[in-house]
Amino acid sequence: MSFDSQDHPHLRYNPLKDDWVLVCPHRMKRPWAGHVEKPEEEDIPSHDPKNPLCPGNTRPNGKVNPDYESTFLFTNDFPALLEEAPVPDQSEDELFQCKEAKGTCQVMCFHPRSDITLPRMTLDEIRTVIDKWAEINVDLGKKYSWVQLFENRGAIMGCSNPHPHCQIWASSFLPNEPTVKHRTQREYYIKHKSPMLVDYVKKELNKKERLVLENEDWVWLVPYWAVWPYETMLVPKTHILRIEDLTDSQRNSLADIMKKLLTKYDNLFQVSFPYSMGWHGAPTGSYMEEDCNHWQLHAVYYPPLLRSATVRKFMVGYEMLATQQRDLTPEQAAEKLKNLPEIHYKDENK
Amino acid sequence: MSFDSQDHPHLRYNPLKDDWVLVCPHRMKRPWAGHVEKPEEEDIPSHDPKNPLCPGNTRPNGKVNPDYESTFLFTNDFPALLEEAPVPDQSEDELFQCKEAKGTCQVMCFHPRSDITLPRMTLDEIRTVIDKWAEINVDLGKKYSWVQLFENRGAIMGCSNPHPHCQIWASSFLPNEPTVKHRTQREYYIKHKSPMLVDYVKKELNKKERLVLENEDWVWLVPYWAVWPYETMLVPKTHILRIEDLTDSQRNSLADIMKKLLTKYDNLFQVSFPYSMGWHGAPTGSYMEEDCNHWQLHAVYYPPLLRSATVRKFMVGYEMLATQQRDLTPEQAAEKLKNLPEIHYKDENK
Ligand SMILES: O=P(O)(O)O[C@H]1O[C@H](CO)[C@@H](O)[C@H](O)[C@H]1O
Ligand SMILES: O=P(O)(O)O[C@H]1O[C@H](CO)[C@@H](O)[C@H](O)[C@H]1O
Repeated sequence: MSFDSQDHPHLRYNPLKDDWVLVCPHRMKRPWAGHVEKPEEEDIPSHDPKNPLCPGNTRPNGKVNPDYESTFLFTNDFPALLEEAPVPDQSEDELFQCKEAKGTCQVMCFHPRSDITLPRMTLDEIRTVIDKWAEINVDLGKKYSWVQLFENRGAIMGCSNPHPHCQIWASSFLPNEPTVKHRTQREYYIKHKSPMLVDYVKKELNKKERLVLENEDWVWLVPYWAVWPYETMLVPKTHILRIEDLTDSQRNSLADIMKKLLTKYDNLFQVSFPYSMGWHGAPTGSYMEEDCNHWQLHAVYYPPLLRSATVRKFMVGYEMLATQQRDLTPEQAAEKLKNLPEIHYKDENK
Repeated sequence: MSFDSQDHPHLRYNPLKDDWVLVCPHRMKRPWAGHVEKPEEEDIPSHDPKNPLCPGNTRPNGKVNPDYESTFLFTNDFPALLEEAPVPDQSEDELFQCKEAKGTCQVMCFHPRSDITLPRMTLDEIRTVIDKWAEINVDLGKKYSWVQLFENRGAIMGCSNPHPHCQIWASSFLPNEPTVKHRTQREYYIKHKSPMLVDYVKKELNKKERLVLENEDWVWLVPYWAVWPYETMLVPKTHILRIEDLTDSQRNSLADIMKKLLTKYDNLFQVSFPYSMGWHGAPTGSYMEEDCNHWQLHAVYYPPLLRSATVRKFMVGYEMLATQQRDLTPEQAAEKLKNLPEIHYKDENK
């Protein structure tokens, strides 16, 4: 029998993380009798007087939100990172190493209404979010080495508030994931004189089997090494270091592709699709003075759903202790996403 | 203000994984209005004629289970890894690397009854499980480089069947996690002429602040670099490479400490405590002929619950994209576990 990547178990290499994912396509055939998720709450009021993220409401710490009409940015009332924190002593023992962690955590509401999500916002409204992201990266990037923009969407992704929002955690240190990507991209760049993800996207544009959507400036694809069932990556077609480097037209086309991709995600299981997403670009702070040309800006989406709105993939036992494992192949996921309509299922009958 | 590790955010180094965890003790103060888990099913019948893991029942593939009275081992009906799988061609492109993955997936039922869990089994019954683990590691270790013994317990840990059981995934390759631990332990051994975890345990026995339980042969502790709220590690006091190397008395004392630790876990939130756990020891297969003295056998427990039986820690956005983050400190977790009774809450009123 000859090897068929759509049918036979194999390992795929992730050059960004320098590790492997186990792909087991035949596992899709097994029955599922395990945990079933509660479907996401669908009847969220447009304004909830008790929701601390809504315009005009009072937050737990007594601060009152303005009557904002677009986005709204503020410092998290319970930040994991603090701007001023006492510094631990240097430890002499290599088994008990401790390091200072300074930073700030912010929250950005995308929209004044709670009953709306990014894919159902207008292109102008999405563009405003993108401009804000760029602004935040510039502002916090002056002081901090890493500005992590991310959105946890849906209760099963630990999102504690249904109001559309993202978070920004900026830190004095380079976290684990970007540390690895900094190294792998640099090693590739030294070897090939070209950024890894720029080369990668060019190749995927030729191969086509993992592409889901593209426009003038952007490619949305399922990476060859994707771990989560419908994990995707959004990458510019040209070499861009940081989100603030996007031109006016690249921002417009980003709003356009984001609206389409998030609509496809929601249409997959006809549910507001849960995920964690975030942006990775060249580090900031003191890294701004270093050569970061090996970096390519990209967004990643990590959605947990596998079979339906209520059956997710669990990254547990084997995944935690050994190696990440996926069931359907990246090519199968890309094919499914490609074939979905670009009109949101909730807007279909309008 | 001087630095207080129980109050101020900081990073801790994990020398086994060569990465960092962000510790934010002050985050325990924030309110939680997010997702609430369904409490675990508590009224499981002792024998369910429809459960494919019970004695005498027919599994989905038509095979009939024996009327087993102790443990029961069989090959997973829907294995992620296959003993014979076609081998992919070597890829020339470093961005599209693919590797063969051969292996086998087995399931071991711990007990004929569905309404029992490890902490409520007798010491003899637990000892039988330990002996089986050792046997399996020897058997599969002849052929495979890595034998991952693991238990996913509880529906929120992706466990699809309430009958007490564990899984064994053995593979022709060394998975990601053991690959890293192989390297870090070897580097430490070359530098210090002593295994990392043997040194580590000696130091923890002196420091005491992260110890939960110990007996003649074993130490149960919350590692300095723990990620999950009540993550723990179970380590022998002497240098042991693989689970089959445990002596008769070390196996008895393992049964003893396992019963106590799992009872404490259940008592923490008065619920059958969900977790993923597994064993890591020196690799097998062709590694048996190599010097693996840098390895020390250990079990890890990764439990997701944070505040109660229904409020868990989510490893999402920041954790997936940047760095693992924990709320309460390892020392606070150890203190809580230490103070819990060693009699199971369900047996209290007997
Ligand atoms: O084989 P099970 O118990 O049904 O499956 C569970 O454990 C596996 C190994 O950790 C995971 O890959 C699955 O996502 C999880 O649901
Ligand atoms: O701040 P939130 O949204 O309440 O919290 C959520 O995102 C954080 C950052 O990824 C995680 O640490 C939390 O576990 C999760 O529940």
